[in-house]
Amino acid sequence: MTVSYTLEVANVRFGGFSKLLFRWKGSIYKLLYKEFLLFCGVYVFFSALYKQQDVFERFVLYCDQFTNTSFIPVLFVLFYVTLAFNRWWGQYTSFPLPDNLMMVVSGNVHGADERGRLLRRTLMRYANLSSVLILRSISTRVRKRFPTLEHVVEAFMTSPELKILESLHSDFNKYWMPLTWFSNLASRAREEARVRDDIALRLLMDELNNYRAKCSLLFHYDWISIPLVYTQVVTLAVYSFFAFCVVGRQFLNPEKGYKDHKLDLYVPIFTLLQFFFYVGWVGELIINPFGEDDDDFETNQLIDRNIQVSMLAVDDMYQNLAPLEKDKHWA
Amino acid sequence: MTVSYTLEVANVRFGGFSKLLFRWKGSIYKLLYKEFLLFCGVYVFFSALYKQQDVFERFVLYCDQFTNTSFIPVLFVLFYVTLAFNRWWGQYTSFPLPDNLMMVVSGNVHGADERGRLLRRTLMRYANLSSVLILRSISTRVRKRFPTLEHVVEAFMTSPELKILESLHSDFNKYWMPLTWFSNLASRAREEARVRDDIALRLLMDELNNYRAKCSLLFHYDWISIPLVYTQVVTLAVYSFFAFCVVGRQFLNPEKGYKDHKLDLYVPIFTLLQFFFYVGWVGELIINPFGEDDDDFETNQLIDRNIQVSMLAVDDMYQNLAPLEKDKHWA
Amino acid sequence: MTVSYTLEVANVRFGGFSKLLFRWKGSIYKLLYKEFLLFCGVYVFFSALYKQQDVFERFVLYCDQFTNTSFIPVLFVLFYVTLAFNRWWGQYTSFPLPDNLMMVVSGNVHGADERGRLLRRTLMRYANLSSVLILRSISTRVRKRFPTLEHVVEAFMTSPELKILESLHSDFNKYWMPLTWFSNLASRAREEARVRDDIALRLLMDELNNYRAKCSLLFHYDWISIPLVYTQVVTLAVYSFFAFCVVGRQFLNPEKGYKDHKLDLYVPIFTLLQFFFYVGWVGELIINPFGEDDDDFETNQLIDRNIQVSMLAVDDMYQNLAPLEKDKHWA
Amino acid sequence: MTVSYTLEVANVRFGGFSKLLFRWKGSIYKLLYKEFLLFCGVYVFFSALYKQQDVFERFVLYCDQFTNTSFIPVLFVLFYVTLAFNRWWGQYTSFPLPDNLMMVVSGNVHGADERGRLLRRTLMRYANLSSVLILRSISTRVRKRFPTLEHVVEAFMTSPELKILESLHSDFNKYWMPLTWFSNLASRAREEARVRDDIALRLLMDELNNYRAKCSLLFHYDWISIPLVYTQVVTLAVYSFFAFCVVGRQFLNPEKGYKDHKLDLYVPIFTLLQFFFYVGWVGELIINPFGEDDDDFETNQLIDRNIQVSMLAVDDMYQNLAPLEKDKHWA
Amino acid sequence: MTVSYTLEVANVRFGGFSKLLFRWKGSIYKLLYKEFLLFCGVYVFFSALYKQQDVFERFVLYCDQFTNTSFIPVLFVLFYVTLAFNRWWGQYTSFPLPDNLMMVVSGNVHGADERGRLLRRTLMRYANLSSVLILRSISTRVRKRFPTLEHVVEAFMTSPELKILESLHSDFNKYWMPLTWFSNLASRAREEARVRDDIALRLLMDELNNYRAKCSLLFHYDWISIPLVYTQVVTLAVYSFFAFCVVGRQFLNPEKGYKDHKLDLYVPIFTLLQFFFYVGWVGELIINPFGEDDDDFETNQLIDRNIQVSMLAVDDMYQNLAPLEKDKHWA
Repeated sequence: MTVSYTLEVANVRFGGFSKLLFRWKGSIYKLLYKEFLLFCGVYVFFSALYKQQDVFERFVLYCDQFTNTSFIPVLFVLFYVTLAFNRWWGQYTSFPLPDNLMMVVSGNVHGADERGRLLRRTLMRYANLSSVLILRSISTRVRKRFPTLEHVVEAFMTSPELKILESLHSDFNKYWMPLTWFSNLASRAREEARVRDDIALRLLMDELNNYRAKCSLLFHYDWISIPLVYTQVVTLAVYSFFAFCVVGRQFLNPEKGYKDHKLDLYVPIFTLLQFFFYVGWVGELIINPFGEDDDDFETNQLIDRNIQVSMLAVDDMYQNLAPLEKDKHWA
Repeated sequence: MTVSYTLEVANVRFGGFSKLLFRWKGSIYKLLYKEFLLFCGVYVFFSALYKQQDVFERFVLYCDQFTNTSFIPVLFVLFYVTLAFNRWWGQYTSFPLPDNLMMVVSGNVHGADERGRLLRRTLMRYANLSSVLILRSISTRVRKRFPTLEHVVEAFMTSPELKILESLHSDFNKYWMPLTWFSNLASRAREEARVRDDIALRLLMDELNNYRAKCSLLFHYDWISIPLVYTQVVTLAVYSFFAFCVVGRQFLNPEKGYKDHKLDLYVPIFTLLQFFFYVGWVGELIINPFGEDDDDFETNQLIDRNIQVSMLAVDDMYQNLAPLEKDKHWA
Repeated sequence: MTVSYTLEVANVRFGGFSKLLFRWKGSIYKLLYKEFLLFCGVYVFFSALYKQQDVFERFVLYCDQFTNTSFIPVLFVLFYVTLAFNRWWGQYTSFPLPDNLMMVVSGNVHGADERGRLLRRTLMRYANLSSVLILRSISTRVRKRFPTLEHVVEAFMTSPELKILESLHSDFNKYWMPLTWFSNLASRAREEARVRDDIALRLLMDELNNYRAKCSLLFHYDWISIPLVYTQVVTLAVYSFFAFCVVGRQFLNPEKGYKDHKLDLYVPIFTLLQFFFYVGWVGELIINPFGEDDDDFETNQLIDRNIQVSMLAVDDMYQNLAPLEKDKHWA
Repeated sequence: MTVSYTLEVANVRFGGFSKLLFRWKGSIYKLLYKEFLLFCGVYVFFSALYKQQDVFERFVLYCDQFTNTSFIPVLFVLFYVTLAFNRWWGQYTSFPLPDNLMMVVSGNVHGADERGRLLRRTLMRYANLSSVLILRSISTRVRKRFPTLEHVVEAFMTSPELKILESLHSDFNKYWMPLTWFSNLASRAREEARVRDDIALRLLMDELNNYRAKCSLLFHYDWISIPLVYTQVVTLAVYSFFAFCVVGRQFLNPEKGYKDHKLDLYVPIFTLLQFFFYVGWVGELIINPFGEDDDDFETNQLIDRNIQVSMLAVDDMYQNLAPLEKDKHWA
Repeated sequence: MTVSYTLEVANVRFGGFSKLLFRWKGSIYKLLYKEFLLFCGVYVFFSALYKQQDVFERFVLYCDQFTNTSFIPVLFVLFYVTLAFNRWWGQYTSFPLPDNLMMVVSGNVHGADERGRLLRRTLMRYANLSSVLILRSISTRVRKRFPTLEHVVEAFMTSPELKILESLHSDFNKYWMPLTWFSNLASRAREEARVRDDIALRLLMDELNNYRAKCSLLFHYDWISIPLVYTQVVTLAVYSFFAFCVVGRQFLNPEKGYKDHKLDLYVPIFTLLQFFFYVGWVGELIINPFGEDDDDFETNQLIDRNIQVSMLAVDDMYQNLAPLEKDKHWA
């Protein structure tokens, strides 16, 4: 996610948040300015149309009545947005990071010779390949980077592996296959005594399962959307609320003495703020975090980071320890 | 679950959700159109009946009073729907998937000969059989596919196994029995040294327990419904709210000058929208996710997927590894 | 829990819930009919008393004012009921089921001879005994079935075991003692090589701990009630709300022209519905799920089920496998 | 926690809760009677002062206006009380109970001779000592019982242990030190082959870590209070609400015809009930559960229970099994 | 977190919370006094400006209307603050404490000679180094203490280690590298038989993974802020609410008979209280807990504590046990 601002407000008090209001990237203004202009346009259109006609005034009052009562089922919106946010955070924490896996591979698959390096690197490659396969199917950014499996071959797969992958028929996503390879290869490494004992093999298997569980969770988050009905209800509610507002919040001639219409301010500032509040609340998180918006995860960079640190940890850092020295506090 | 729409809205902003409003499958319109027509019919009936009679008008005003106060205990509805949604998601994540189990069977039960294949395939068959047994008792779709245990035999059981299953008397669901077979067969595989060490056996047992825990959770979700009282209260609340609406939201003669009855619009748009909001919110998730609606889980396809990938993983993919090659980043 | 209705509404839409409204067992009508009749009686009494006296009318209006403002602190009720429901579901999922334990005993304590059977059966008996001891102290049904420890002996304990149990002095519940026996007996089985390796012993110990944790949780749920203050506040709130209603919701003479009192309907349908909503919401879950109501857990049947399947799994099913056959999909 | 009442309401319906209203110990009356009398006193004082003066009446109406609008930010109170309750329950479930630990010590540290007994008893003593050290720093009751470490020596420590404990300098709580002794002693027991294998040692270490995690959680709950700002806001809100009430809820002369002031009841029953609702809700859980109120945990009794059952389990019950007998259902 | 006050209110009832209102450090007054003075200043300015002008009065009434309706989307604020609080508590519980790790290192890496001490101390140093690296990037306090890696060398790293760390290129935070060293060094200690068996090595690896998971979680909490849009919406809402208040809550001339403007109190006490409630609620937790406010975590002291107890546990306390003695209850 691009837009990180925690450090800026580390020490400031409430007053200091004002500077956050003037950011553009990832901001509510960037998110909503088109809708906002549309809303204003229609509002002005009706405002111009209005010629003190009695019927129009009664229609305004009728609409206004709805915008003032609890028309938007706010508790439902709360319910919906909470669902959406939990999915969003759930997807983020489900992003498969190879850190644990690479640490146990580095510590438990031995041999500084070529065969040892090959084993460790291949194991980590399988893990990373699996995450790429699953991310291709859920992230538009990753899909653009790897439009076909051939593109994946370049970075994460060998051609023979691709052939095997394609020879296995399954109607569903095959992201789990490289992890089965991992399991089989770890088992072979144990036979070759590269993995020295059964406990270490078990450790590899356990971390593999944790890794797989995260890939699987991503797959399910993508497969099971929030029920369409809910999304339709909340969209309908917000849309129709603003449709009523555009009429009902027109200023009426103060001289006619309608209740709560004593003043003509030309700019319905309260309504415009409400526009920001509701649409900002509802509109943001609804979005797939694996898309291409400012606020979406930088999936491609994470993929690069993962393969990079995987190789660093299992190859460059393997048994590459500084000489042990007494520390400063040694007594 | 059939209706997946995440990818469509990956990049769009709030404005783009409008296209979601025009989908039919799994939509609120499909869900509610019958109830909606009924509601409109009754509304029109009362509307036609209305002949400016004074008593009727007072009755309308009396009813209207309730529809405008917080008649529906919205917080209770929130409470109820949150319960229902948590059950729904809980049931989904409790669906027993054999992925972990097949990976450890593939990596830890050895032998490319017939005996080895037989062991691995039988173990996975037991696991899948268990999930079929539990799903038969909770999903109407699976029940239709496997009306008797004989039908299960065709795909997931041998006849001798069926005989043993039937010879064991238990008043409760027997879904756990194939898993006990799994445990015993794994133990025998250890004796035959197909499972090479105690740690690997333990790994099989651990994954078996995780698998069993999910089956068990499904069983309990089915057994323990949300207390009937709650469902009755929420149904009663929504039904009676709309019963009041059908009367209380009638347009009264504007000339009689009743408060908030200055305009006769013929179509009570606000009321109709409320109909969608409340019934869409309450009506959706209340439903057993293992039924046959658009939005329900495609249980039968999942069963097929599970047995298919199980066999792929433990048989076709067993030690079927591509030759190890140096990767692109090898330094 | 007796009242299960999920399957009935598997496919029906919102409209179909109406049939749930006409069930009696576990229903809101059965739960509340006595209170309801009392409420109606008092209402009618005041109604009859009412003789257009001015003071009474003002008293009605005064009371009515409270029933219309947010007298009941609904958010507090939400808070309270959520607490109560979480306890209820927590207690259900804490019910100790021997399924995991019996599976590992069946797979890891070996020997088809009498000694082997004796070991396996005794281990499972200890586990079941422990759950009976804890359930006796929290469930009125189980207490009635086993009023003294002598009654437990008949089914779950031998006399020497009872003697040992009684010889150990502890001021608190002794439910954990049979589990200590389990631990010691498993340790002895390891010495006799009935448990073949240390890993298997560890597996038994782990599952034992899970089982014990559930018993312990049940004990704590019973020990720590929701703070009494909360229960008193919520009871007081609901009681006094209906005390105000019984006066404040009287129909006043329409001819006197009191605001919102234009119509005399004789039956205050709105108030009666509110009665169902609030009392149904609050009254249900407040109840100990280990009592004897329709909706309470069928503890005794669960106890029977547990000992039955325990014995089935560790004795009848021990190494009782059907011959391995090639499955239908064997290629 | 002293006040347990679950069993009393096991079977009763809503109506039966009335008897809970008449308990004193741990009740809302005991909790609030002083504040309640103060509130009534001030109310009566203002009531007496009131002499139909016009300014006072207007002041009453002004205050009343605030008590009727949503002055108390109820959602914030909900937020705060939920926080507080979660802490309370979190602290309860963090109470370190030695049950798991004693079971694995009993099953895995062998030898019925004095050395064996000494090892087992010392291990459990270390665990209990650790919980006493942490509880001394958070519970006023335990602090009173063990004002100095010397008092702990009497029951849970030997003098040489105290010397070692004091010789180690640390600015923070030293509760973790006896657990490090446990770890080292278990390691020594393994060397002496009292713990027979590495798996058993691992089991001891795992349970030790679980135990330590709970002590640590207690420490953190004590260290990190709910932010003071929140507590101040909620206190200020409730205090000022009742300050307004004491004025604004005065009965005005009915003859002056103020709106909603048609009746003089002398006792403002609605206000008094509100007093109970809000203060009962907010006032209860705010309290440290390790204090000395009716509702607080009986920490000292739990400490006694823990050391008692620890010694029972690892000493008296060690390999003290009843002879194995065939059970009633043996076939 | 500096401001701990639990013990003060251990036994007091609600009434006793008043003393909490008069604390300054970490209080709402300290947090908000500047904003409060600003608010009062602007209020007085408008108050002085006001000269009974009709237009101004109508403007006041217009603004007041918004401050009295539910202008602030309170449910959204609840949603936002709950998010923020959960992050805050999540960050606290993610703080990596070495307690578990040091206990297993002390119990499982053997040898009282220099090599043994060196191994144990270096392992713990790596773990502490890792937490310092991650905290440097998220806490302004730690960043000030260790502005460059050179400063870290003084306390937590040797120069050769720094060289290796810098030689490894990664675009992302390198906090995980010392943990890879830990993994490799533990593996080497196993080869040297300082770790006596595979199970103990596994235990070290498991605790290492737990430790790493916490560092990783801190990293992610810092990386993924709450979506900027949400923060902007909530800031905008609170700011504009008080902008309306500063005008709309002016007292109008009572003689003009505006509704709810019968009294001129000069001090708008209700508005000022609201100021505290809303800003105190929203303003507090929004802040990065790793900043330098009163209420923020004392990160530097925790770092010192961690290295101190780490060294105590693995060096001074290694096999430094008091002689085993019979306890007081020995029978």
